Amino acid sequence: MPTRIEHDTMGEIEVPTEALWGAQTQRSLQNFKIGQERLPRAMIRAMGLVKKAAAITNASLQQIPQEIAESIVGAADEVIVGRWDSQFPLVVWQTGSGTQSNMNCNEVIANIANQKLGQPLGGQKPVHPNDHVNRAQSTNDSFPTAIHVAAAIQINELLIPAVKKLRNTLSDKSEAFKDIVKIGRTHLQDATPLTLGQEFSGYVSQLDHGLKRLDQALQGLYELPLGGTAVGTGLNAHPEYAEQAAEKLSELTGLPFVTAPNKFEALAGRDAAVFASGALKTVAASLNKIANDIRWLASGPRCGLGELRIPENEPGSSIMPGKVNPTQSEAMTMVVAQVLGNDTTINIAGASGNFELNVFMPVIAFNLLQSIQLLGDATNSFNENCAVGIEPNQEKIDYFLHNSLMLVTALNPVIGYENAAKVAKTAYKENKSLKQVAVELGLVTAEQFDQVVQPAKMVFPNQ
Amino acid sequence: MPTRIEHDTMGEIEVPTEALWGAQTQRSLQNFKIGQERLPRAMIRAMGLVKKAAAITNASLQQIPQEIAESIVGAADEVIVGRWDSQFPLVVWQTGSGTQSNMNCNEVIANIANQKLGQPLGGQKPVHPNDHVNRAQSTNDSFPTAIHVAAAIQINELLIPAVKKLRNTLSDKSEAFKDIVKIGRTHLQDATPLTLGQEFSGYVSQLDHGLKRLDQALQGLYELPLGGTAVGTGLNAHPEYAEQAAEKLSELTGLPFVTAPNKFEALAGRDAAVFASGALKTVAASLNKIANDIRWLASGPRCGLGELRIPENEPGSSIMPGKVNPTQSEAMTMVVAQVLGNDTTINIAGASGNFELNVFMPVIAFNLLQSIQLLGDATNSFNENCAVGIEPNQEKIDYFLHNSLMLVTALNPVIGYENAAKVAKTAYKENKSLKQVAVELGLVTAEQFDQVVQPAKMVFPNQ
Amino acid sequence: MPTRIEHDTMGEIEVPTEALWGAQTQRSLQNFKIGQERLPRAMIRAMGLVKKAAAITNASLQQIPQEIAESIVGAADEVIVGRWDSQFPLVVWQTGSGTQSNMNCNEVIANIANQKLGQPLGGQKPVHPNDHVNRAQSTNDSFPTAIHVAAAIQINELLIPAVKKLRNTLSDKSEAFKDIVKIGRTHLQDATPLTLGQEFSGYVSQLDHGLKRLDQALQGLYELPLGGTAVGTGLNAHPEYAEQAAEKLSELTGLPFVTAPNKFEALAGRDAAVFASGALKTVAASLNKIANDIRWLASGPRCGLGELRIPENEPGSSIMPGKVNPTQSEAMTMVVAQVLGNDTTINIAGASGNFELNVFMPVIAFNLLQSIQLLGDATNSFNENCAVGIEPNQEKIDYFLHNSLMLVTALNPVIGYENAAKVAKTAYKENKSLKQVAVELGLVTAEQFDQVVQPAKMVFPNQ
Amino acid sequence: MPTRIEHDTMGEIEVPTEALWGAQTQRSLQNFKIGQERLPRAMIRAMGLVKKAAAITNASLQQIPQEIAESIVGAADEVIVGRWDSQFPLVVWQTGSGTQSNMNCNEVIANIANQKLGQPLGGQKPVHPNDHVNRAQSTNDSFPTAIHVAAAIQINELLIPAVKKLRNTLSDKSEAFKDIVKIGRTHLQDATPLTLGQEFSGYVSQLDHGLKRLDQALQGLYELPLGGTAVGTGLNAHPEYAEQAAEKLSELTGLPFVTAPNKFEALAGRDAAVFASGALKTVAASLNKIANDIRWLASGPRCGLGELRIPENEPGSSIMPGKVNPTQSEAMTMVVAQVLGNDTTINIAGASGNFELNVFMPVIAFNLLQSIQLLGDATNSFNENCAVGIEPNQEKIDYFLHNSLMLVTALNPVIGYENAAKVAKTAYKENKSLKQVAVELGLVTAEQFDQVVQPAKMVFPNQ
Repeated sequence: MPTRIEHDTMGEIEVPTEALWGAQTQRSLQNFKIGQERLPRAMIRAMGLVKKAAAITNASLQQIPQEIAESIVGAADEVIVGRWDSQFPLVVWQTGSGTQSNMNCNEVIANIANQKLGQPLGGQKPVHPNDHVNRAQSTNDSFPTAIHVAAAIQINELLIPAVKKLRNTLSDKSEAFKDIVKIGRTHLQDATPLTLGQEFSGYVSQLDHGLKRLDQALQGLYELPLGGTAVGTGLNAHPEYAEQAAEKLSELTGLPFVTAPNKFEALAGRDAAVFASGALKTVAASLNKIANDIRWLASGPRCGLGELRIPENEPGSSIMPGKVNPTQSEAMTMVVAQVLGNDTTINIAGASGNFELNVFMPVIAFNLLQSIQLLGDATNSFNENCAVGIEPNQEKIDYFLHNSLMLVTALNPVIGYENAAKVAKTAYKENKSLKQVAVELGLVTAEQFDQVVQPAKMVFPNQ
Repeated sequence: MPTRIEHDTMGEIEVPTEALWGAQTQRSLQNFKIGQERLPRAMIRAMGLVKKAAAITNASLQQIPQEIAESIVGAADEVIVGRWDSQFPLVVWQTGSGTQSNMNCNEVIANIANQKLGQPLGGQKPVHPNDHVNRAQSTNDSFPTAIHVAAAIQINELLIPAVKKLRNTLSDKSEAFKDIVKIGRTHLQDATPLTLGQEFSGYVSQLDHGLKRLDQALQGLYELPLGGTAVGTGLNAHPEYAEQAAEKLSELTGLPFVTAPNKFEALAGRDAAVFASGALKTVAASLNKIANDIRWLASGPRCGLGELRIPENEPGSSIMPGKVNPTQSEAMTMVVAQVLGNDTTINIAGASGNFELNVFMPVIAFNLLQSIQLLGDATNSFNENCAVGIEPNQEKIDYFLHNSLMLVTALNPVIGYENAAKVAKTAYKENKSLKQVAVELGLVTAEQFDQVVQPAKMVFPNQ
Repeated sequence: MPTRIEHDTMGEIEVPTEALWGAQTQRSLQNFKIGQERLPRAMIRAMGLVKKAAAITNASLQQIPQEIAESIVGAADEVIVGRWDSQFPLVVWQTGSGTQSNMNCNEVIANIANQKLGQPLGGQKPVHPNDHVNRAQSTNDSFPTAIHVAAAIQINELLIPAVKKLRNTLSDKSEAFKDIVKIGRTHLQDATPLTLGQEFSGYVSQLDHGLKRLDQALQGLYELPLGGTAVGTGLNAHPEYAEQAAEKLSELTGLPFVTAPNKFEALAGRDAAVFASGALKTVAASLNKIANDIRWLASGPRCGLGELRIPENEPGSSIMPGKVNPTQSEAMTMVVAQVLGNDTTINIAGASGNFELNVFMPVIAFNLLQSIQLLGDATNSFNENCAVGIEPNQEKIDYFLHNSLMLVTALNPVIGYENAAKVAKTAYKENKSLKQVAVELGLVTAEQFDQVVQPAKMVFPNQ
Repeated sequence: MPTRIEHDTMGEIEVPTEALWGAQTQRSLQNFKIGQERLPRAMIRAMGLVKKAAAITNASLQQIPQEIAESIVGAADEVIVGRWDSQFPLVVWQTGSGTQSNMNCNEVIANIANQKLGQPLGGQKPVHPNDHVNRAQSTNDSFPTAIHVAAAIQINELLIPAVKKLRNTLSDKSEAFKDIVKIGRTHLQDATPLTLGQEFSGYVSQLDHGLKRLDQALQGLYELPLGGTAVGTGLNAHPEYAEQAAEKLSELTGLPFVTAPNKFEALAGRDAAVFASGALKTVAASLNKIANDIRWLASGPRCGLGELRIPENEPGSSIMPGKVNPTQSEAMTMVVAQVLGNDTTINIAGASGNFELNVFMPVIAFNLLQSIQLLGDATNSFNENCAVGIEPNQEKIDYFLHNSLMLVTALNPVIGYENAAKVAKTAYKENKSLKQVAVELGLVTAEQFDQVVQPAKMVFPNQ
């Protein structure tokens, strides 16, 4: 690969001729040959947004020339939309501050800008990666700012809409199933009845609460470290920079970003990410319950519970027609396992700051954004490829309902608890229906039984 | 041990003569000889509160006689204040619904009440454990209600006050240390300076955010499952019971409890607990950072950083006077490790509900309440036995500050970056002070150096 | 409470008159009012064993007088058997080295010994807690030694026998069920058949592997830090002490303890505990699978899978006779959730050593020993109260087997895949049996069908 | 994108014209738009190895024609070496059995083979993806076999050599530093001395134990599920297939693979992966301790401990020459946080099997192989870019050693404990050296002091 020579304070280094990145990125590439995991698109986009907001703010505060700012903005816009993702080759497993990823962004933007102005790559003029693109910033404040911006965007643009869609699908199902009376199950054992609509309403309520929790988590992510620079004092930044840059980011994204009230915390703690992961894992716990219930209720087709039918998306075994594997539930529950593991990673990383900086930032960014992406994508996939197509298997539902021994409860007022218990025990032991036994024992007539034992009344006791 | 004979639907069973518990508790005792971990005091108190609120509500709705309700309230009050904790012998590792612990509470209250009325233990009259004490309840709604009540009380009564106290201590320190300029450290390496007050202000801000997060977590805990009974339909409960009982619990505790909007979720999901654990682990992450910083800053006395002095609470080694082990930090970081592990347990348990019930409730209650208790107690202990006594070691702070090579930054405008870099590199290589090297190289006079290199100005760049 | 005055290097302190502990224990009690969790019985026993072995070794090496050693051994024996557990009041959340718990043990043993010799409590003579009981030890080596000894004993005495018992029960069931052909289930969906005995043989194999893994984990626990003293150099210990003390511990316990080959690791790392927890969580994963399978296979009685019957240990709901809640499975899966969380705690704690010591020892001991205890007890409970009583529900098993559509596979060689698929699809769609459809379509006669479709042949294809 | 039409049992589907994959892969692509995470290279290689071994075995057992087997082997060889990784586009978040990834492999190999024979893509002849490539296999046995093969290869080829290299580097350092006496630190506080070589020997011993643990974990991975087919009974596989295929895989890889003794466990449990992750996290805990110690010992350059010098790999801040961020330690500790989180994910996934299958296989494969890769790569990177270049900072080491108050211990026999304590306390209080105080107090002469207080003797007490 042909190379060009770049210089930094450690001397010369060869960079691929066509690369938009520079010396610092190159050194990190060479020193950290660890895994394949790169910072995701959402993070590159957010770094671009931070650089754009910083440039506009610095220009408006007369810290850099207007035309330099415009060049940076033009280049940053291309980074933001994803045109140059291939120019961000660094892995997650680098310095814990993300310094080289921040420099990577500075270098790429400077090179794009300078190239457009007819200057060679690596020339660092007129747009300088440090003096202009990184102006008034340290990695220590701009990188965590990008984490907050990326996570807030992804939660707002991807996860919340996905959860809302699934919530609405399940709400529609709940409405559609509102008159389907079915057996309840507690401890996996037969219990008193409820409607299928009621069962689904519980899922809807879980997701409604989840949406509220995501919103609560966003509050902390909206506070931006930008302006703290190296250790939180704001050394080298204009006094009005922090507030204006946060406003600019708010304007660029449409999200209510503000400058963090305390920059020392903002650099040294990553608590907002830890708490956001706490909301994500709670949503994951809800989705796990929903995906599990649905695959169990759809189990069968002949030897399971089989109360629901779910869409058949892939061929089952070439031997067994009718076998529908609940693959969307499986994908979802695997995603949940990942999100719970990511939460452990984020907890450890978030608790491990020292003094003025937390140096577990790339791993926090990676896990937090992966959790958001996976939950969002899996929720959409589950919604579109499973939830919308859920249908009740009325026959199976009725079969279970009418065979359940717990309907005997309704006889208590008529024949007394002792006799009712005798009916149920005999039915179980002799594998008969409650009605048959009740009539055989001479406790009620068939007509009386039918009049009294009506599951539909048991599911709306308060109506 | 002398015993009396009790009966339940499975037949006779021997119960210790003096025990206030009954047959169901006794069966659980015999069937679950697993570990020693019992439900904590906070949970027993909360179960007592639930029974009291239920009795009052049931009486006001004419579901049980007023005098029965009064007997229950009298007995419940004794349970609430902790007089009968020894009568709750069941371990956490029982049925996942907590049924026998709920029955334990019903049996104890009924026996206390009946005993006061001159009736023998186990007679179940006039106060019946099921028909009266458990009236309009199922374990499935009353046990998770007790979890919410217990956690909400403990967060409000123990954890929040503890965090506030530590926050205030650290805030006082931040104010007291506001003029102490010290070296900053990022990546554990020397960085630009800040004040010790600024460093502590970061801790204060972490705890302020933590208090907000605890408050957000409480919102979900304030929603009570009570009234859902067996599967969420509210079978066997008066239509107004759910709302009134929640109001009564609110009145009894002074906390804004409300009835959960959806009882199917309220029984089948434990998401509020999962999210609350998410807030607890975030507070734990903050406390870990604070406790770690303080023990590192107090490391030494001669061979560490030694910028802080912390109280000497226990004799250090009998050999080394002056050795102060940072034991409060150690207790705190061990508690944090426990809370993070408890979070994993709660995540797994909370994600594992099936259909109409989550049967991991005792383990959720146990871990959630342990996390609250440990964080609350450790925070109080850390505050009283460490934080309040923190003092700066001015000599050490000054020594590091003035030896730091990064102060060379201030010379940039005067002698240029190249020369400043030369000064720093030479100083490091030859192990000299910046001043000595700068003067030796003829770049500035000693007077100029002292005028320019003033760390105190670097820490408030915007003033 | 009446008190006596004791002295230590920090001055005077009041200790309860009757307490066998001394000044150092008392200070810890006062400085760490955090939670209720104490070091478990197994740990106290192990500390007693360490003190006993040390005393014998020190005497044999002429480091302490023979009669002093005998006094210590006598007192330690009482500690070992559990007579003085109430004299170990310290909580887990203390100094991370366990120093005060070690001193607690030294103080109690010295006081018991001196009391027997007619001396007053706290007099420290003729047996001195430091000079004699703690002779040649530091907390830094004796406390982690006690962790290893306690965990090794508990795994050998409690967990391995429990797992073996359950393994044997399941093996017996596997043998008893070897001819019961049943439907297989993958993805919760009907699959090709196997025998119930084969299904259970998988559980047996999991536990066999688990026993092997526990044995592998024990290897590291058998290496003892004792003899490293303060930082691993063995300062103040006789050159032959480490090896002889380990031999003595081996002799006292019947377990193959040896002195750790590198004492610097032995004090600073707790990797053997981390790895042991890795074995425990693997056994937990196996038990989770087994307990889950069994509760699902026993689900019903009418509306679940119902292929197994499990013992009814507690009354189910007073309404529903025949409802058997799988409470032993529930206790087990809650224990598993706890063990997985404990594993997270141990991982964090074990990874957090610094320099010459890991100061997360009490929390490691607490979680490791809790995991062993809970797994051991829950396995015994599950075995005795559930596994031994498992019976097949032959009727349900047959019903599912003969209704399964996948038996059509056997027709492939006779009527071809296309026709077989048609049979299966039609049967599913029209809710008929395979046989009915196959005959109706004129593809085989009823006799042919019965001859060809024999599930019993499909489960032993290689016989 | 131009497409060709393929058929499966669900009908027609468009596949990109040039794609080597077929209908089943395409359906999964469309139904699971979740994240970007694909099965790693190691897994593709392992699937290729499984297909190769199966083809050879099937041919030798006369189950498929020899020339078909040869075509498969030729194609599989290309998959094994990585030529067709781009043809494996499926994400981790698919069906939990990995069915479509298995089919992906079958389709790619069949298409490569057929293409070489001049047949069109998708024609399925003469080599059929199911009948030939997947012969005698089900995804349920071949996919977990591939997981075991992939993990075993990666541990053997990548991780163990990496750990050995670092172990040897640290062993060399331990030898080189064997005479450098330095202060010990426990609780982060000054303690008795040891040599730097001794300190490093602890790291070596941790890694030696880690290598043993990896070996123990490999034992379970060497047992292969292949031959169990759909549910463990081995339906459709030749009786000698399981054993011969395992032998073939052993031959192809040089690793001691054997057929799993119980195929029901082998399909339904993933315990070997759970236990392997337990070994990985233990190695991670060791590496965390090592990486942390080294970055702390290298902290500074002026305001930290500074006893070690580590290589400067990237420019530090443009302001501060001499600032060396311990970036390799940071990458390592981030990797450790990831591995501990992956362990949580694997625990949850591994504990979640049901009946005859665990359907969390892709997420287990993904996390297990990521943990191996990251630990291996990070260890190599840490070794090459940090460990090999570690040098002692003798001046700093001596400074701390000689200022430590704990050297006073050596005076105990000469001047008594009381006087020694007085010396130490006075030295600390008045910030003087021990020698100065001891002489000033008239307790020893300067000559006596120098003769008695010799740290070098304290570090080898038994020599």
